[in-house]
Amino acid sequence: MTGTLFGLGVGPGDPDLITLKALRLLRAAPVIAYPAPDRGDSLARAIVASHLDGTQTEIAIRIPIQGSRFPAADAYDRAVEAIAPHLEAGRDVAAICEGDPFFYGSFMYLYERMIEKFPVQVVPGVSSLTACAAALGTPLAARDDMLSVIPAMLPVALLRERIMSAEAAAIIKVGHHFEKVRAVLAEAGLAAKSRYVEHATMSDQRILALDQVIAGAVPYFSMILVHQRGRAWR
Amino acid sequence: MTGTLFGLGVGPGDPDLITLKALRLLRAAPVIAYPAPDRGDSLARAIVASHLDGTQTEIAIRIPIQGSRFPAADAYDRAVEAIAPHLEAGRDVAAICEGDPFFYGSFMYLYERMIEKFPVQVVPGVSSLTACAAALGTPLAARDDMLSVIPAMLPVALLRERIMSAEAAAIIKVGHHFEKVRAVLAEAGLAAKSRYVEHATMSDQRILALDQVIAGAVPYFSMILVHQRGRAWR
Repeated sequence: MTGTLFGLGVGPGDPDLITLKALRLLRAAPVIAYPAPDRGDSLARAIVASHLDGTQTEIAIRIPIQGSRFPAADAYDRAVEAIAPHLEAGRDVAAICEGDPFFYGSFMYLYERMIEKFPVQVVPGVSSLTACAAALGTPLAARDDMLSVIPAMLPVALLRERIMSAEAAAIIKVGHHFEKVRAVLAEAGLAAKSRYVEHATMSDQRILALDQVIAGAVPYFSMILVHQRGRAWR
Repeated sequence: MTGTLFGLGVGPGDPDLITLKALRLLRAAPVIAYPAPDRGDSLARAIVASHLDGTQTEIAIRIPIQGSRFPAADAYDRAVEAIAPHLEAGRDVAAICEGDPFFYGSFMYLYERMIEKFPVQVVPGVSSLTACAAALGTPLAARDDMLSVIPAMLPVALLRERIMSAEAAAIIKVGHHFEKVRAVLAEAGLAAKSRYVEHATMSDQRILALDQVIAGAVPYFSMILVHQRGRAWR
């Protein structure tokens, strides 16, 4: 009997936003794995730290932050080498995923390497998308609205086109693209219909008007919600 | 001291996909409210039924299914009349929301009526969007993909344009629009890149290829995920 690889969405940051299912599977797994920076602590692990008893084998998947735009294949190849022996020995492995495993998550790089060799089960989690809407007190979308999730890294022309074409837009992974995004929104006359939130549901959550944001200090986990109609319900 | 209205996302259907936070607030509230059809049982209430002890005051917000395309304002005006006295008397009210309260949820109609008069707090939940992706074993979107959430009720030309413009599309609220959507996808050459799921995470969850779906039997809670690239990670 081989073990199962669980991809557990543990929610956007507040430890209480984990689901009963993810918590049960997290605690039952003899091995846990999580993404982490080259040096330092894992945000994913920090989200669930209060739920752990310290008895599990831990595998940190260290992803180089610098360098190529997309996660280094090497890091995931090494993660497979570290995880596979546990599964082969019949031990379940819980991969901890910030937010939801399949919503722009790095879990998919493990998933594509594992799905043909081992049982894999994905447990959905509360994504940053709905967490940001709750933090802002702003419905994401309603009725026949199209809601587009738009990575901030896109080039200006595409960014503009895609923001303009949706009734509601969530611009994600803002980070050092903030100034570019702010300029696009200002030019489109959408600045007043846009709201910024960083670290939604975490203890350092901040909500700011676009003109209050200091561009150099915008974290990766930040989002701008834009409603062309002003409010989703109008 | 007035009470607080909580909008609790209770997840897509599996009772274990409620968060610790929503469960705690749900159990602590002396009054619960939930949308329900004109006659018959509430799906939102059914999701949390196993977590209730039967001692709470219950308010069913009965929404006419027939008739206008958008929820009747009357039903929400009456809900406000039923809920407000509890808040005024200092009793918290937990509004139970399928999935997430702000992701195309009917909670916003309560929210807009209450937010200026009472404290309102929204607890995000696992949305049908990520639940469907988990059920299908398909990442929703990755890296610089745009993910568009597209209500199936849109007219054909707009539906086609919006599906084609996104790397990944989630077509929601399919129901009786299925045949129209299937034709658009077939014409666009995307049938093989589309996957259908209904009642994700519920006991009657079904996953089907588009050509296996019987159009007349498609429920409202169904979704089609389309990946232009075939798979999100390629």
